[in-house]
Amino acid sequence: MVRIGMDVGGTGIQMGVVSDKGEILEKGAVVTRTDLPFSEQITQMAECALDTLKRSGHTLDDLRSVGAGVPGVADQRTGVIPLCTNLGWHHVPFREEMGKHFPGKPICIDNDATVAGLAESVAGVSAGTSSSVFITLGTGVGGGIVIGGKVWSGAHGIGSEIGHMTLELDGEPCTCGNRGCLERYCSATAIIRMARERLDFYPDSLIRESCGGDASKINARMVFDAARQGDPLGEKVFRRYVIYLSQAINTITAILDPEMFVLGGGVSKAGDFLLDAVRAEVPKYALFKDAFPLPRIELARLGTDAGIIGAAMLQ
Amino acid sequence: MVRIGMDVGGTGIQMGVVSDKGEILEKGAVVTRTDLPFSEQITQMAECALDTLKRSGHTLDDLRSVGAGVPGVADQRTGVIPLCTNLGWHHVPFREEMGKHFPGKPICIDNDATVAGLAESVAGVSAGTSSSVFITLGTGVGGGIVIGGKVWSGAHGIGSEIGHMTLELDGEPCTCGNRGCLERYCSATAIIRMARERLDFYPDSLIRESCGGDASKINARMVFDAARQGDPLGEKVFRRYVIYLSQAINTITAILDPEMFVLGGGVSKAGDFLLDAVRAEVPKYALFKDAFPLPRIELARLGTDAGIIGAAMLQ
Repeated sequence: MVRIGMDVGGTGIQMGVVSDKGEILEKGAVVTRTDLPFSEQITQMAECALDTLKRSGHTLDDLRSVGAGVPGVADQRTGVIPLCTNLGWHHVPFREEMGKHFPGKPICIDNDATVAGLAESVAGVSAGTSSSVFITLGTGVGGGIVIGGKVWSGAHGIGSEIGHMTLELDGEPCTCGNRGCLERYCSATAIIRMARERLDFYPDSLIRESCGGDASKINARMVFDAARQGDPLGEKVFRRYVIYLSQAINTITAILDPEMFVLGGGVSKAGDFLLDAVRAEVPKYALFKDAFPLPRIELARLGTDAGIIGAAMLQ
Repeated sequence: MVRIGMDVGGTGIQMGVVSDKGEILEKGAVVTRTDLPFSEQITQMAECALDTLKRSGHTLDDLRSVGAGVPGVADQRTGVIPLCTNLGWHHVPFREEMGKHFPGKPICIDNDATVAGLAESVAGVSAGTSSSVFITLGTGVGGGIVIGGKVWSGAHGIGSEIGHMTLELDGEPCTCGNRGCLERYCSATAIIRMARERLDFYPDSLIRESCGGDASKINARMVFDAARQGDPLGEKVFRRYVIYLSQAINTITAILDPEMFVLGGGVSKAGDFLLDAVRAEVPKYALFKDAFPLPRIELARLGTDAGIIGAAMLQ
């Protein structure tokens, strides 16, 4: 049997026919069309999926399920997507619409970070663990929780929204309406903000050079690259970033105590530079120091394929 | 079939023979003896349990399992209690020792707050929910997480230590070695601290009257009672308490999104006065306001029996 996994993004929708072991057998893609009504967009996705299935040498009889990861909130129980800002989707009955093209097949949905976390736990770095928390460090911060081998996305589909745990009371205002959310301190956006706010105090910073003196051109990579080279501003921002992330890992450990944390998303491309710093910082906040094993912390392994593989494994 | 549940406390160990539905059929108790080696303490517990079983009209043949909730950290997998400060227990092989008295019977252990949370989800206010987070607001702050009807205590037995999630970066120093833990803001101890710190600035406070001018005699109830009567210092501390607790509930919701929160422990005896305030505050920090149902928040119902019932239901 095979599965279809769809990774729904703001500009494109990647999909694949995936084996039960999590191997991608064949790929396809359609352009995201926010100008179309959702039913037409879903029809285009389904047609591409059926074509990809055929190209993989399989038929509908071989198909176990269809899954999709979306950059928004997905209700696994009802199959409705209440909110997916990038696609302009509000209360879209995804399961019902997609189901028309795959009669009798289970249609599963979940948040894209959750799906990536599931992929890692099936075919990536956290394979073999019974519990893991995946943290995507990108433009925003997302999360994916796997407990007992199964995704946990909460009673109302808004669980694992790790980016919106409160890290600092009365802290930075967040797009979600609250203040002090983790996303305000651990996203690429936060790295850029922290560097910009301090740039005037570091006239000799390498970051000033990389951005040509135009603070609006600073990106997260420039800041971390500067830190790597010992630039004081870069190091300052990087240190704050690592402290914030480590405290968040501590809070999640106090609540969930997972076997492993997996760091993914654009910022995690800093690789061992980031991983080593976080691994050194987290033990400082460990509960009952020395009495218990620390959570393992690893980098995500699957890269951009995680969205397709995880979506396929939702069933 | 029946079960035995043991509620291990610092001064006494309450136990009961419990039906599969969570009803206590017969009770027993022994005094906690920290002067004895753990094996003798466990022998006394086992003898009392066997006597209670007999008084309930049952024999070992009717016994499904023995469970214990301890005020410390318990490793469910190994049956070892790595740390239980009140009893002076370090790395006690509880399952092995207790098992000698109940050959062939499953012996289960977990943290006392987790056990109380399980009790509520079986026979209390959260019965019928598939996921709930129990928060004990006492001298410290503890937690119990139930997901899919099962207790989740983490990969290393230190999950649901809600009292040690970081609420404030670089905040109040905590007994665990970290700073800014929830327990420093939402325990009875924290209420007392917040009132004491401010007492000099409120010469006319009712709290000064209740404690006879001796700040060392302030207790949490005095502070909340003063708040109830409109005392400005009492109200100030109560407001801070409610804000801290609500933000913690928000963070746990962002991670776990449980169907229900249950508030237990001594501070929760403030009843509707506390519950109404928390229910009014939590929506202010809700993620995706108005788009999703808010978590239900209720008071614990089972009182002191929760420890016995929950321990019995661990199997």
